[in-house]
Amino acid sequence: MNYRMMGKIISEILAFEAAFMIPPIFICANEGATGTLLAFAVTMLATFAVAAVLFLFCRNAKKGFYAREGLVCVGLSWLIMSFVGCIPFYISGEIPKFIDAFFETASGFTTTGSSILTDIEALSNGALYWRSFTHWVGGMGVLVFLLAVAPREKKNGGFTMHLLRAESPGPIIGKLVPRIKQSAMILYVLYVVLTVLDFIFLVFDPQMPVFDAVCTALGTAGTGGFAIKNAGMSVYSPYVQNVCTVFMLLFGVNFTCYYFLLMRNFKGFLKNTELRVYICWVLASIGMIFINIRSLYETTEEALRHAAFQVASLTSSTGFASTDFDRWPTFSKAILFTMMFIGACAGSTGGGFKIQRVLLLIKDLRRNIHQVIHPNEVRTVSMDGQRVSERVLKNTGMYLTAYILIILISAFLVSADGFTLTTNISAVVSCTNNMGPGFEQVGPTLNFAGYSAFSKLVLIGDMLAGRLEIFPILVLFSRSTWKKS
Amino acid sequence: MNYRMMGKIISEILAFEAAFMIPPIFICANEGATGTLLAFAVTMLATFAVAAVLFLFCRNAKKGFYAREGLVCVGLSWLIMSFVGCIPFYISGEIPKFIDAFFETASGFTTTGSSILTDIEALSNGALYWRSFTHWVGGMGVLVFLLAVAPREKKNGGFTMHLLRAESPGPIIGKLVPRIKQSAMILYVLYVVLTVLDFIFLVFDPQMPVFDAVCTALGTAGTGGFAIKNAGMSVYSPYVQNVCTVFMLLFGVNFTCYYFLLMRNFKGFLKNTELRVYICWVLASIGMIFINIRSLYETTEEALRHAAFQVASLTSSTGFASTDFDRWPTFSKAILFTMMFIGACAGSTGGGFKIQRVLLLIKDLRRNIHQVIHPNEVRTVSMDGQRVSERVLKNTGMYLTAYILIILISAFLVSADGFTLTTNISAVVSCTNNMGPGFEQVGPTLNFAGYSAFSKLVLIGDMLAGRLEIFPILVLFSRSTWKKS
Repeated sequence: MNYRMMGKIISEILAFEAAFMIPPIFICANEGATGTLLAFAVTMLATFAVAAVLFLFCRNAKKGFYAREGLVCVGLSWLIMSFVGCIPFYISGEIPKFIDAFFETASGFTTTGSSILTDIEALSNGALYWRSFTHWVGGMGVLVFLLAVAPREKKNGGFTMHLLRAESPGPIIGKLVPRIKQSAMILYVLYVVLTVLDFIFLVFDPQMPVFDAVCTALGTAGTGGFAIKNAGMSVYSPYVQNVCTVFMLLFGVNFTCYYFLLMRNFKGFLKNTELRVYICWVLASIGMIFINIRSLYETTEEALRHAAFQVASLTSSTGFASTDFDRWPTFSKAILFTMMFIGACAGSTGGGFKIQRVLLLIKDLRRNIHQVIHPNEVRTVSMDGQRVSERVLKNTGMYLTAYILIILISAFLVSADGFTLTTNISAVVSCTNNMGPGFEQVGPTLNFAGYSAFSKLVLIGDMLAGRLEIFPILVLFSRSTWKKS
Repeated sequence: MNYRMMGKIISEILAFEAAFMIPPIFICANEGATGTLLAFAVTMLATFAVAAVLFLFCRNAKKGFYAREGLVCVGLSWLIMSFVGCIPFYISGEIPKFIDAFFETASGFTTTGSSILTDIEALSNGALYWRSFTHWVGGMGVLVFLLAVAPREKKNGGFTMHLLRAESPGPIIGKLVPRIKQSAMILYVLYVVLTVLDFIFLVFDPQMPVFDAVCTALGTAGTGGFAIKNAGMSVYSPYVQNVCTVFMLLFGVNFTCYYFLLMRNFKGFLKNTELRVYICWVLASIGMIFINIRSLYETTEEALRHAAFQVASLTSSTGFASTDFDRWPTFSKAILFTMMFIGACAGSTGGGFKIQRVLLLIKDLRRNIHQVIHPNEVRTVSMDGQRVSERVLKNTGMYLTAYILIILISAFLVSADGFTLTTNISAVVSCTNNMGPGFEQVGPTLNFAGYSAFSKLVLIGDMLAGRLEIFPILVLFSRSTWKKS
C-alpha cells in the first residue's frame, strides 16, 4: 500500500474542505450567529493545520498507485470528510448529539438527504448553507474536484484513473477526453453551469428568497434533498416546484450526454439507450401516478405537479417532498418504491442502482435464457452499439449480490428499534440509494431521529456504500486489503 | 421441438394425476360427500380419457430431446397439473370461484400453502385430503415420480436428465447413482419413509385424529403448509407441534445427505457446507427469536416451542403457523422475513432461493473483491471441496437477477389492490419462495382471498416460477423458444 500517496491525497482533500468552510463563516457573521461562526472558524483552522502536517509527512510519496489504493483512498476520504464536516454542527451545539451531526453530514456528502432534525428552521443560515453545500460537493465527488483543480504530475494517468473509477457512479466509466484532468474539469464546468441556471430560474420567482434559492439549487444539483424548511418544498410556489422538477430530472441524466450535446455530437446523444429508457420510465410513472392520485387533489394541475415532482425527486434520488406521498395509494407508493431501487442514470449526480445496471442485467439474463434454448449459439451483450465485456457484466452481477446483501443485513440490523418492516426496509433502501425519505415512520414529513445510535451507524454505512457504489467500502473493510502482500 | 415426446410425457402425467384421485373418491364415499365424490370421479375419468387420446397420438415419438424441450415440458406439465387438479374443487362447488380453485391447487402443487379459503373446515375430507396430497406430489416433483416409476427405454439418459434438471431444486443437480431412474427411485423411497415416520410420530398422540395426522404428514413432507383447521396448527398439542418442527426441519435438508447416511458415507455427510450453515442458521434464529418473544408468552416452554416451530416452518418454506407471528416484534419478523428470502437447502422439498445459492454468491463476491485488490491472482470458487464451474456461478447470478426482477414486478402488479406495501411485498416473496403466509393483510391468521383475480394470477405465476426455479417458466414464455430454428 502506498500510504504516503494516500496521505497526500487526503491532506489535499482536507485543505479543500477547510476552504469550503469560508462561505458559512461569512454567512454566520452576516446573521450574527457568533457561536456557529466560531465553530466553523475553529474547525477550519484545525483542519488546515492537520492537512499541512499530513502533507509535510507525505509530500515526497513514491509512484505506484493501484486499484486497491484508489478504492481504499476513496473510502477513507469520504469517511474523513463526513467526520470533519460534522464538527461545526456539533461544537456549535446546533446539533447536540455527535452521532446525529455525523449522520446529518454523511447524509449530506453522500447526497442522501435523510435528516435527523426535527426542527430544521431552528438552525442558523450558516449551518443550513453548509448542510446544502455538502450535497453539492458530494454530488459530483470531491476527488473528481481534486483531479479537476489540483496540479498533477504528467505520465501518471493510472493513478488518477483509479481515483476517478472508484468515485464515479455507474458500471462503465467513460473518460470524456483522453486526459482525465480535462474530463474532470469538463464535468465540473457542466455541473457549475447547470447549478447556476437552476439558481437563476429559482430567484426568477419574486417570492423566492435568494438564500433559499441558493440552498435549493445546491441540494438539487447534488440530487441531495435537504430542504431548509420544516414543510419541505411545499412552502414554495408551484413555479418553484416545477423548476425543481425539471432540474432534478436534468441532474439525473448522465453528464456524458450533455458533453455530447456541447460537442454537437447529436448521434452519440440520441444513441444513449439509458437516456431513452430514463425518459420513457419517468413519463410513464408520472402518468400512472397522476391517474392514481387525481382524486386526492382539488385541481388537475395540482395532482399533475405533485406526481411529476415526486417522480423527478425519487427517480433522481433527490428526495425533496412537495407533498406527503406516504398518504398516496399503495399503487403510487409501489411505483415510488421501485424508483428508490433503480435510481437515476449512470454518470449522473443521482444515486441508486442505476438504470444502466438494470439494462445490463436484463440483457445478460435474456442472453442466458437464449443460450439455454440454443446451447450452441454464442452471444455477446452490447449497449449503445458497443459490445459489453464479460468482466463488466460479471461485476454488475456481483454488484447486485452485494447490493441485496447490504439491504437485507442492514434491514435486519436496524429492526431491533421496533419500527415497522416497511419503515426499516424503506429506510435502508432509501439510504443505500442516497434517496432521503422512506415510508411510514421515516416518511417525507418525518425523519430518522427516532433510530438508535447503532441503527444510525448502520444507515451511515449504507449511505457511504451507496454513494461509492459499495466496492470501495467492501475493500476498505476487507482483511486481505491490509494483509502484507 | 419434439412435440410428440412432450405429449407422451404429459399424457403419462395426466394418467398418474387421475390415478391420484382414487383415494379422495373413497374418502368422499366414506363420509357421504356425494357431490365431491362425483366431481372427483368425473374429473378422473375425463383426465384418463384425455391422457389416453394424447398417448395414442404421441406414442411413437422420435428420439432427440434437449434442455429446451425439458424446460418447456416441465413448465407446461405443472400448469396442466394445477389446472386439472382444481376441477374437482370447482365443479363440486367446494370452491365456488374458478380462479380461487386454481390458486388453491397451484398453491398446493407448488408446496406454497397460501390459501384463499376463509373457512377451511367447511370443506369435505375428500377435498381436504386432495389439497394436502397436492403438496406431497409437488414436494418431490411429479416428473421425478414419473422417472422413478414409468418404464424408460435404455440409452436415453439425456432425455431424463433434462427433465430431472428442470424440476429438481438447487443450482447443482447431483445424481445419486449413475442411472437416473434409480436416483429418482431412491429419492422417492427416502421421501415415503420420512413421510410415514412423520405420520407415525403424529398419531402417537392419542388426541390426534388419524385423518389429521395423514394430511399434516403430507403437508409437512412437501413443505407445503396447508392446514385443515381454521386455527392452523395451534389447535394441536405441543407434542404434535414439536413433531412438526422436527420434520419440517428434516424435509428442509438436501436429500443427498440422507442418501449419504444410508450409504454410511459419513464423510460426505459432514462435508456438506450447506447443511452446516443450515443448522447454525436455524439454531441462531431460534435463539434470537426466543429471547425477543419470551415476554409475550406465559412459559419459557411456550415461547421456545413457538420460536422453534415458526423458524422451522419458514426456513423450510412450509408455512404452518402455531401462533400469530405477525404480532411478534419487528426484530423477530425481520428474521422470519430474511428466512422467507433464503429458504431451505438445495435438493430438499423446501422452496426459496436456497442456502446453497446464497453461499455460492457470497463466495463469488469475496473472490471478486479479492481480485480487485490483487488483480494478478486468479482464483476459483469451490464448495464442499469441489471446484464450482464458472457456468454454475454465472447461472446463480442470473438466477438472482431473475428472482429480484420477478419480485419487484409482481409487487408492483399486485399493488393495484390497495393493500399495504408490507402485505404486497411479503405476499409476493412468500409465493415466489413457496412459503405460504406473509405479513399484515396476508398474515398467518388471514388469507389471500382479498386479492383481485388479476393479482391471484400474478401470484400463481410467482408460485410456479418459484417451485420450478424460474427458468422453465421464462423459457416457456420466451419468444425464441417457439421460433422455428
